[in-house]
Amino acid sequence: MRPSDVFDLLRDGQPRTRAQLAELTGLARSTIAARIDVLLRLGLVAPYGGGISTGGRPPSLLALNPGAWVVAGIDLGATHATAALADLAGTILAERRADLDIAAGPEVVLTWVEGVVDDLLTEQRRPVSELAAIGMGLPGPVEHSTGRAINPPIMPGWHRYDVPAHVQRAFDVPVLIDNDVNIMALGERHAHLSDVDDLVLIKVATGIGAGIVSGAELQRGAQGTAGDLGHVRVGRAGDTVCRCGNVGCLEAIAAGPAIAAELREQGIDVADGHGVVELVRAGDPAAIAAVRQAGRDLGEVVATLVNLINPSVVVIGGALAEAGESLLAGIREVVYSRSLPLATEHLRIVTSRAGERAGVIGAAALAIEHVLSPAAIDAAERRLVSA
Amino acid sequence: MRPSDVFDLLRDGQPRTRAQLAELTGLARSTIAARIDVLLRLGLVAPYGGGISTGGRPPSLLALNPGAWVVAGIDLGATHATAALADLAGTILAERRADLDIAAGPEVVLTWVEGVVDDLLTEQRRPVSELAAIGMGLPGPVEHSTGRAINPPIMPGWHRYDVPAHVQRAFDVPVLIDNDVNIMALGERHAHLSDVDDLVLIKVATGIGAGIVSGAELQRGAQGTAGDLGHVRVGRAGDTVCRCGNVGCLEAIAAGPAIAAELREQGIDVADGHGVVELVRAGDPAAIAAVRQAGRDLGEVVATLVNLINPSVVVIGGALAEAGESLLAGIREVVYSRSLPLATEHLRIVTSRAGERAGVIGAAALAIEHVLSPAAIDAAERRLVSA
Repeated sequence: MRPSDVFDLLRDGQPRTRAQLAELTGLARSTIAARIDVLLRLGLVAPYGGGISTGGRPPSLLALNPGAWVVAGIDLGATHATAALADLAGTILAERRADLDIAAGPEVVLTWVEGVVDDLLTEQRRPVSELAAIGMGLPGPVEHSTGRAINPPIMPGWHRYDVPAHVQRAFDVPVLIDNDVNIMALGERHAHLSDVDDLVLIKVATGIGAGIVSGAELQRGAQGTAGDLGHVRVGRAGDTVCRCGNVGCLEAIAAGPAIAAELREQGIDVADGHGVVELVRAGDPAAIAAVRQAGRDLGEVVATLVNLINPSVVVIGGALAEAGESLLAGIREVVYSRSLPLATEHLRIVTSRAGERAGVIGAAALAIEHVLSPAAIDAAERRLVSA
Repeated sequence: MRPSDVFDLLRDGQPRTRAQLAELTGLARSTIAARIDVLLRLGLVAPYGGGISTGGRPPSLLALNPGAWVVAGIDLGATHATAALADLAGTILAERRADLDIAAGPEVVLTWVEGVVDDLLTEQRRPVSELAAIGMGLPGPVEHSTGRAINPPIMPGWHRYDVPAHVQRAFDVPVLIDNDVNIMALGERHAHLSDVDDLVLIKVATGIGAGIVSGAELQRGAQGTAGDLGHVRVGRAGDTVCRCGNVGCLEAIAAGPAIAAELREQGIDVADGHGVVELVRAGDPAAIAAVRQAGRDLGEVVATLVNLINPSVVVIGGALAEAGESLLAGIREVVYSRSLPLATEHLRIVTSRAGERAGVIGAAALAIEHVLSPAAIDAAERRLVSA
């Protein structure tokens, strides 16, 4: 048994005495004392003030100490970036948003990241030594194990770029990278669906992708590319060329730019997905019809996803989700007619509640999950011992 | 810490002394002694004979005792059934195969199951008291948590039938039920791909379905219906009516009966999928072309599955897998042209090596996984203590 196992008993936030921990774990008193010493020195656990005296000297209580460390969560989109500082309970302490073009390349973008993390720490009066980890989402395929983007279509200069190494020149902490949609799924679950173990978050914006949580675990697949919905072939796309170079992809007809292009062909002046959402909100019938059709196209792939993965909640996020019921109605129409009855019996298809903050909340959650993992705690202990 | 945690250290088959277990777990000597006592009484651990004397009385070694208990694995297909007895290491001790129509209903089929388990125990001279659990696969959607089939299309009389309760009238042991394809995925992994954490086994026979293992865990989804490939819509199926009542399903054009029907329309005398495989083996060009086209249709759905789930191995099993390269060539043709390059970079698409024994090996593995699970060991301990 390692210190992390004792810690697992404290993660629920309940304060406990050393005697209770010894009883619950079956560990020897001397072992408990040594483990608690490590966790106290790491700052993950702290003496808890509210011990109830049963006469004589009160037993000293210990509890998780969420404020001892902070993590940074970074959500990098195509043209915007959000950064936040959070405590170990995932409470966002401070947040910044900026216009930032991912295509400016890793030097420019990561220099901004380093600057904003520094600013947030200063603003919150936290020394750099209290930063435990950084979680970051990138808008493209990511090899999670190495933290590198792989052939990301909208990120020139980022292919196989070593993001953690760059950021670690400024901050000597673990840097966890994932794609933007995976962190959105983590964020939505952390903020609003913590009791749901099987959910899929689908981002519909400039591109289309999904973050899949099955059995309470984010499913990245063998190469980290799980959830690539955007380049599934759908009937109505026919031979439409997609920006990926293939033909017939969902993204080529149902993402924001495709819907806007379709409306422009009808003589409607609209630049992008955000413009489409504004038209839908203004009650424009052509825009409502186009979004509903995009929903049906999406529904074709969601129906397959429901048959293959059987989630209990499908969350629609991204800019197009703001078109609300028009998009959902199209998706539901196809999913409920195509999927297995048992798979749709308790299925909910909803729009994201975390909205554009899902990514940054999830990036912080990714960092926290790492900091509180048994492996990370054991590694921190080894550093303490060898120091 | 519970007895199961001590046991986890012995599951690798390495013999260890009580002193080594105390050191590895950090548990008090008295705690170790109590835990080992429970595991010895449960028979899961036994004294190991090969202790090396270092002078004086040799330390007594303990090791996993795979032969102490047996499990039964049952693979029920549409028209055949296989039953096996295995030890806790998954070694098959004895096996029986019979013609048995699942449509005969649960009374007939489960009476056969009870008889064959009894016969296998007698043949192996194992008392019923040494049977630890029964794992069983059914050819339809199964709610794994309750062990009931839900609206299974080819299993009249089985809808919501309480299979575990029936079997437990004869054998008072845990009965684990899953669908036939999930147990095939477990069996293939147990027998041939134990180092692969992300694999999908696709059964192509009278129906088409998949068992999905992601992150080393079988993924059943929220309602246990994950892996339902057969009723995904594919382009070539058009308005072909499927036996599920929907139109355009993969199964309606690419499963054994559909291929056979297509060949009959061309004037070729063939009854079913097995007949199609025989024709392919005999070099019949029409059969080879039809199987390759079925492979392409399958490939459409496999391409989507690869984009969504990103496995490292796709295993094709079931009767049609015996058509070998003709089927694989069609699948590969579409998958490699449709899926994301990163997802297919290290992807292997292969035929099953466990073949028709995958199901029964997997059913036994399902039972063993339960018997050796922490929850089951703790429950067994509570029964010992209260007895």
